[in-house]
Amino acid sequence: MSARESWAYLSRVVEGPSRHLQDLFREGHSADDIAAAIRNRKPWLGPLLGETASRHGWERATEDLARIEELGGRLITPEDTEWPRRELDQAFGFAASGLSEHIRSHQADAVPPHALWVRGGSLARAIAQSVAVVGTRAVSRYGMEATRMITGGLSSHQWSIVSGGALGIDTAAHEEVLQKQGTTVMVAACGLDRAYPARNQPLFDQIASSGSGVVVSEYPPGIPPQRHRFLTRNRLVAALTQGTVIVEAAWRSGALNTLSWASALGRVAMAVPGPVTSANSLGCHDRIRDGRAQLVTSSDDIRALLGGIGELDLEKQYELQFPGTAPQGLSRNELRVYDALEENRDRDTEEVAATAGLPLALTVHLLVDLGKQGLVLRNGTRWRRNTPGDQEV
Amino acid sequence: MSARESWAYLSRVVEGPSRHLQDLFREGHSADDIAAAIRNRKPWLGPLLGETASRHGWERATEDLARIEELGGRLITPEDTEWPRRELDQAFGFAASGLSEHIRSHQADAVPPHALWVRGGSLARAIAQSVAVVGTRAVSRYGMEATRMITGGLSSHQWSIVSGGALGIDTAAHEEVLQKQGTTVMVAACGLDRAYPARNQPLFDQIASSGSGVVVSEYPPGIPPQRHRFLTRNRLVAALTQGTVIVEAAWRSGALNTLSWASALGRVAMAVPGPVTSANSLGCHDRIRDGRAQLVTSSDDIRALLGGIGELDLEKQYELQFPGTAPQGLSRNELRVYDALEENRDRDTEEVAATAGLPLALTVHLLVDLGKQGLVLRNGTRWRRNTPGDQEV
Repeated sequence: MSARESWAYLSRVVEGPSRHLQDLFREGHSADDIAAAIRNRKPWLGPLLGETASRHGWERATEDLARIEELGGRLITPEDTEWPRRELDQAFGFAASGLSEHIRSHQADAVPPHALWVRGGSLARAIAQSVAVVGTRAVSRYGMEATRMITGGLSSHQWSIVSGGALGIDTAAHEEVLQKQGTTVMVAACGLDRAYPARNQPLFDQIASSGSGVVVSEYPPGIPPQRHRFLTRNRLVAALTQGTVIVEAAWRSGALNTLSWASALGRVAMAVPGPVTSANSLGCHDRIRDGRAQLVTSSDDIRALLGGIGELDLEKQYELQFPGTAPQGLSRNELRVYDALEENRDRDTEEVAATAGLPLALTVHLLVDLGKQGLVLRNGTRWRRNTPGDQEV
Repeated sequence: MSARESWAYLSRVVEGPSRHLQDLFREGHSADDIAAAIRNRKPWLGPLLGETASRHGWERATEDLARIEELGGRLITPEDTEWPRRELDQAFGFAASGLSEHIRSHQADAVPPHALWVRGGSLARAIAQSVAVVGTRAVSRYGMEATRMITGGLSSHQWSIVSGGALGIDTAAHEEVLQKQGTTVMVAACGLDRAYPARNQPLFDQIASSGSGVVVSEYPPGIPPQRHRFLTRNRLVAALTQGTVIVEAAWRSGALNTLSWASALGRVAMAVPGPVTSANSLGCHDRIRDGRAQLVTSSDDIRALLGGIGELDLEKQYELQFPGTAPQGLSRNELRVYDALEENRDRDTEEVAATAGLPLALTVHLLVDLGKQGLVLRNGTRWRRNTPGDQEV
């Protein structure tokens, strides 16, 4: 049995996440050794013995590897260069610190996958600069628009988008990236010979054949999607990316689970707000409200949080995008003088001072100052306003 | 000259906010004394002498009082029982602590009004339990809906709504309250004989004649609305209410100034999020993002923040409103077992253990436990699922 067959055997017989299997790897045991020990029920396996009690006879490594090859895919393991070592080490290393509340209740799941089944490009390359975009299946028109706007913006700045291939937000995110010819990664909760949802089979094929895109799963061929696998999959989506963004998530949306994983794994947790007149963004608003997610409104916001762009630059950008009028920079007394002037008629200094309700000397001082700023025109001892302005604030 | 005439004179000649005038009141001088001293240019007035230099000859008290009576209104002062003493003392007392950054740059304005011109019911009563709802003039359909939803909810729980009478959000807020026969207060930035915007004259009249509603201004009759007066007015909106909510405010919206005042005066600053696909909520999102405003999505949220309802109650309400399915409460191993069962066919314990990938003993334990929760049906050593469930998370 080849090393790869041993990994395939482990992938089938030990359903991840398995802390006991990871412990054995850390102690220096190879996949070959562990696979043989499971078959021969060796006591040194410790708790892994019980964990594999009901499946140890499942010998399908050859068939599984043949099946993934048929699908144009491959099995990758920590021994491969495209294994996302850096990201998984970071994420689960952070989790091991035990700082996160989410981790305390999901301790058993805070463990990396032991092998991954992939179709498409290099996984390590695809996720090197990536953001997870996830959300509700019951998407609104607004949710579609927001997803496209944010995903498109990230994609055009060379960020890969990772998502779960579900209907709604996930699908919109994958599709937008493909249209922009960017890189997208779909993390499945079942074997890669099964498409869930079935109608997204063409989308998944398109991702796998897009060049840089990847379809990836912790599960060997044939494994059906089940509730617990979606939850397990969510941790992988969060682990593989620098941050997770939820777009539209109602009160009990599964996307919130991915967001919790993001925090638990030391990633940036972000949420996009939406109309409060719909229940579709309740989950997002709830997470923003209690500080468990950062509010983001654009791909620039997200890039700023992930370090791709400075926060100050962002502020500056808004300043440029929404320029103020000159009077918006004035102090209250300057405004009182400015507002006491007219555009079409010169007024005496005394008249201006009375209208502004300010002493004469101060009024003159302010008029001269406003003149230097180009907001006031002087005509001897008479003055008029130089900028047409709105009466209102 | 009567005391009320002295107040009217001060209202006309000293344009608030005037810290110097407030200082003199605090030193025990009466309105009569101060008015006489201004007329006679008494040196003990200190800085107020300069402040009144250009207006001290404006003798219009009698006319102003006659004019406000014509309008069905009155001048109120700290000597009247309907003067909102408690709220103004609280707000400007907090401001005097100098804790707020906004105050440091608006020190001169953090002073209460010296007199108020009102039409309608008792001001103190109208604002005793009140929230300011303000926002953009360039309102969207969403902004209208959100304003009505939130204002209507607050109004039906006996909260008064204070706003600035501008087009857009302000108007929607006032109108919604009138329709719900609640109490609304409009704080004007000009004399009450002028309507700004002019087309809202009927709305302001309706507020003044609604019974409990009030139209109020710091400015005597005839004073036109000017930019600096809107800013001054905003501090009063924030001071008179327990909290300020902004609904739709773009990057440079004037409503943001009211929100800053709310924080500066120790009031609760709140913002309603909206679609990120529109620039209309940019100001709201910006304030939520940097923690200067609390995110609120409903009138219940607002009441919770202002102490009218417990936060836990709110959480409970969402739980009831959006009930979870039974499996959502299960642990991962419970889910693995539960998902390994079928609804229409009994399965052997061994089959369940293998499908779940768990040891037999643990599987039996979990099956029995799920049985107690009513989620699993037992038939000898065979089991089936008792709850129809969605395959997806």
